[in-house]
Order: sequence, then C-alpha cells, then structure tokens
Amino acid sequence: MQVAVEISLIPIGTSVSLSPYVARVQEVLERAGLDPEMHANGTNIEGDWERVMAAVRECHEAVHAMGVVRINTTLKINTRTDREQTLSETVMRARDRLA
Amino acid sequence: MQVAVEISLIPIGTSVSLSPYVARVQEVLERAGLDPEMHANGTNIEGDWERVMAAVRECHEAVHAMGVVRINTTLKINTRTDREQTLSETVMRARDRLA
Amino acid sequence: MQVAVEISLIPIGTSVSLSPYVARVQEVLERAGLDPEMHANGTNIEGDWERVMAAVRECHEAVHAMGVVRINTTLKINTRTDREQTLSETVMRARDRLA
Amino acid sequence: MQVAVEISLIPIGTSVSLSPYVARVQEVLERAGLDPEMHANGTNIEGDWERVMAAVRECHEAVHAMGVVRINTTLKINTRTDREQTLSETVMRARDRLA
Repeated sequence: MQVAVEISLIPIGTSVSLSPYVARVQEVLERAGLDPEMHANGTNIEGDWERVMAAVRECHEAVHAMGVVRINTTLKINTRTDREQTLSETVMRARDRLA
Repeated sequence: MQVAVEISLIPIGTSVSLSPYVARVQEVLERAGLDPEMHANGTNIEGDWERVMAAVRECHEAVHAMGVVRINTTLKINTRTDREQTLSETVMRARDRLA
Repeated sequence: MQVAVEISLIPIGTSVSLSPYVARVQEVLERAGLDPEMHANGTNIEGDWERVMAAVRECHEAVHAMGVVRINTTLKINTRTDREQTLSETVMRARDRLA
Repeated sequence: MQVAVEISLIPIGTSVSLSPYVARVQEVLERAGLDPEMHANGTNIEGDWERVMAAVRECHEAVHAMGVVRINTTLKINTRTDREQTLSETVMRARDRLA
C-alpha cells in the first residue's frame, strides 16, 4: 500500500528553537530515500506504507537521541485504492483550475 | 518503544454519515487488543509502536475493504523516554489541579 | 454556524510536564461556558463558531500569560449544514452498530 | 496577536476528487490577501489572528456553498510572544543547518 504523509514533529521540554529538530527529521527522511519536501508546518513524504512508517519511527528515535524526552507528532496519512495519483497532482490540478 | 496515539480516520468520496467507518475502526482496534477509547474527534490507543502502527494500517485496509477508495487520517503520536506515564495520567493530573 | 472542535495545545520550550497547561485550557473553556470534554489527546467542545474560536484564542493568551513563549495547537474543526447532529451522536451511532 | 496557520480542509460526502475544494480554499485565502502557500497536505498562511480565523471561516462557508454538507478541517496554529520569527525562517534555519 502506497501512502502520502505529512509529519509535524514537536519536541516537548526543550528550548524554543525548533530548527535543530526540523533539520534532524529532514536528514533522517533524506537518508531513508524518501525525498522529503519540507515546508513551514511539516514535511511531506510519499512511498510504501512500511517504509514510510519505519522512517517516522526513526525520526522519533533520532530526536529522542538528541536528548528530547517527550515528542508529540501529528501525522496526516493519505491512502487511495483507485489509482496512484499523488497529492502533488491534486495540487497541480487545483493550480490548473485557478489559472 | 511505547506510543500513545489518537486516530481520526476520514473516508473521502462516501456518504455524509461517518458512523459505519468509526464503528469499523473501533472493531479493528478492539480485535487488535488495544482497548480503544472512542471520543467525538477520534479514538485513543496506547501500546507498543509496531503493534499500534500495524493496527492503524489494518484500519485503513478495513475501511478500503468497505468500498472507500480514498482515506485521510490524522494521527497524533506521543512518545517519551523518561518514564512510562500515560496520557491518561496527564489528564488525571490536570483534573487534580482543577479540583 | 455551529462547530464541533478538538483543541490540542502544545507549549514549546517549557518543562516536560503538560498537565498545568492542559488544566489551564480546561479552565478557560469552562469559564467560556463551552462544557469541555477533556481526553488523552485533546479537549472537545461544540458551539457557535465565533464563540468557540474566541475561546481558542483565549487559551493561547492564557498559556502565553503562564510564561510560555511559543505554542503549537492542532485544531480539528467540524461543520455541517444538513442538520444539527453533534459528533457525540456519531459516537453513539457507532456504539449502536457495534452492540 | 500574529499567527502562522496550516489549513487542511476535507469535504465529507462528495466525490473522490479534492482539487475543486483545494482550489476554492486557495481562492478565498488569496482574496483575503493572505498570500497562501499551497502544498501537498494543506495550505500555509500567516497574519493577524482575527484576520486569519475570519478567512478560515470563509473557507468553510465557500466550500459549503459548493454543496458540501459536512467538512472536517485540521488547523495547525502557531503563536509566539518572544519575537516575530516566522515559520518560514525556521525552515530556512533548518536548511542552513543541513547545508
């Protein structure tokens, strides 16, 4: 099963700056070969369910390894069975409609 | 790694009524032995990461098997490494403070 | 417009314990007369759009007033125009199906 | 109070295609002068709290006006009181760390 996911990982009980953790998540997802697309409210990835979820777990492990004892992540998970249209295509179609 | 999760599964392209899908998710999580706590905006479960995530995948598969071709799920994932306090304990502590 | 909302407010750059903030949110929502239902992953409220959103803003202001300089909230917002069925009714219908 | 928001609006009980609704949301946010940044899992906006929340309400009203009777939106709301750093700056800092 293919899945399109947005991961927004929030460390709890750390400093106010989030960029070290955002960078670490990006690094983990890149090493997992998931071609992550970082934006202001999270990071978008797509791929095989098991591979994507293993990478999400690795993100938690990597951020805990930085000394963060508590993490709250919001994950958006999109699956469809009718065809392989990606979420990026939805965005492109929306842009076409607006143009 | 233990995890506390909230799953909110939204079927796309179906009827307006969500209760058949909410019930199906509850059933899958109960059968997985995860003692799900259903509420107005999702279902809370806690347990071992792999077991919980396998159940989340089963929920997607079960709802797709009902004929739903597209699903959007929001998952909140909580992990902590300092101790095993559950989210229910956070709620109890908050109630104690208010009392 | 009526709205059913789940608020999950995460303070950033504080201690690991979340219960003081969960309690404060509960208090603000109670004082707003919104009959909040606190659970392990957030607090559910229902009511008039403007009244609910004003209360959400008050929650941010109250938690900032506790000394928290950065907040990340996830809000689920449900509206429907066909009838006034509440989310609690969806849960009851799901329970009926399972019984 | 300034706020950085991600809106992910899901229509319930419609067709499987989401792009008409994604486009409508984009249009509403553009007309509100909020300079929306559309991505695969939502749309990011920043601005004054009241102005942003009024635009979110307008998105619900506009999508209901398209004939959608039920909507589920996930909103991420970020506020900070220490300074005016935007979420885009967090992304830039994360990119700097990775470079």
